[in-house]
Amino acid sequence: MAQKSAPDSTRRSERSRRAIYDAALALVGEIGYSRTTIEGIAARAGVGKQTIYRWWTSKADVLLEAFLDLGEQAAEQAARADGADPGAEYAIPDTGDLAADLKYVLRATVDELLDPRFEAPSRALAAEGVVSEEIGRVFVARLLEPQLQLYVRRLRAAQEAGQVRPEVDPRIALELFVSPLAQRWLQRTAPISHEYTDTLVDYALNGLAPR
Amino acid sequence: MAQKSAPDSTRRSERSRRAIYDAALALVGEIGYSRTTIEGIAARAGVGKQTIYRWWTSKADVLLEAFLDLGEQAAEQAARADGADPGAEYAIPDTGDLAADLKYVLRATVDELLDPRFEAPSRALAAEGVVSEEIGRVFVARLLEPQLQLYVRRLRAAQEAGQVRPEVDPRIALELFVSPLAQRWLQRTAPISHEYTDTLVDYALNGLAPR
Repeated sequence: MAQKSAPDSTRRSERSRRAIYDAALALVGEIGYSRTTIEGIAARAGVGKQTIYRWWTSKADVLLEAFLDLGEQAAEQAARADGADPGAEYAIPDTGDLAADLKYVLRATVDELLDPRFEAPSRALAAEGVVSEEIGRVFVARLLEPQLQLYVRRLRAAQEAGQVRPEVDPRIALELFVSPLAQRWLQRTAPISHEYTDTLVDYALNGLAPR
Repeated sequence: MAQKSAPDSTRRSERSRRAIYDAALALVGEIGYSRTTIEGIAARAGVGKQTIYRWWTSKADVLLEAFLDLGEQAAEQAARADGADPGAEYAIPDTGDLAADLKYVLRATVDELLDPRFEAPSRALAAEGVVSEEIGRVFVARLLEPQLQLYVRRLRAAQEAGQVRPEVDPRIALELFVSPLAQRWLQRTAPISHEYTDTLVDYALNGLAPR
């Protein structure tokens, strides 16, 4: 079905919104969360301060939405590269091979974490979440937890398929491969790579003890 | 062998040093890393600025040593409570039961992370390490990695005892139970408890897949 083209004012708003997101992410990556201001974002985006206040109430709000948008763009790009429907709801693939599906998604996450466009602003926002409990709670509730719930759904499907023990709590289980990657990246405890996340998945599924 | 009592000047230095550590930890917990200064630490400790500069070159230095000292005190207290030699090198116990030993140490870590004396300054220092690569690298090299190496040693002993698969890399394996706890605490993604860390150990050793 052909889509009607958007009216001029909608296209203009969409353009401003994207410019504001780009400016917010660039600034927080360059100068950090605490020195980023609504004024600075407006100046860099080439819009008036009032344009920002029309849509958002605070810089935390702008940044969270900029991140949500960045995440959606990355997911759509990945879906397009795979030939999948870019408008489809984002989910972890279910090919029936749990290890392969988890490795696939974690490899993509490694690529994203190492992408310079993503790294500086993500680190700045994550750091602010560690310092400020309020920002941290919003960051977790709106950005992190929805991503973790995708793993919960995939692990539940694996339980139904008999590939994960029925008594395992999926919300805890996912942390065995997600949290090590998060800690290495956030605290720079060691390098991250596809080989590393593949190993995490193998250890988590098979366990450290001999079988 | 009876120990000679320390000369007066050594006892005085030791008292000043402890006062400086306490002041540094309290300040960073109350006002954050970036607003804590050598001047502020000196004022709170009741010593001259020069006393601090005689022993340390920067506030990062003072804080790292204050943390090392706090960690040593906690380890000595724990050793004394267990009737062990408080002067002994800190290590993860090896009773021959790997699961029990890991659960024991992780439960103690949960208690420490929930201890208010420890929580505010630890969080402030960890947050600074996320923002500043330089502080982060020192924090990891001097505080975090030495603790992780205790797990590496315990897992190697378990490999020799046939309780962990020989092909497992202990430095990655330990992250399956250490990193989830770190992420929950640091990013406040969910509550931490003894039951939670016990579950992590069981999942990591036995794996998520049916045996």
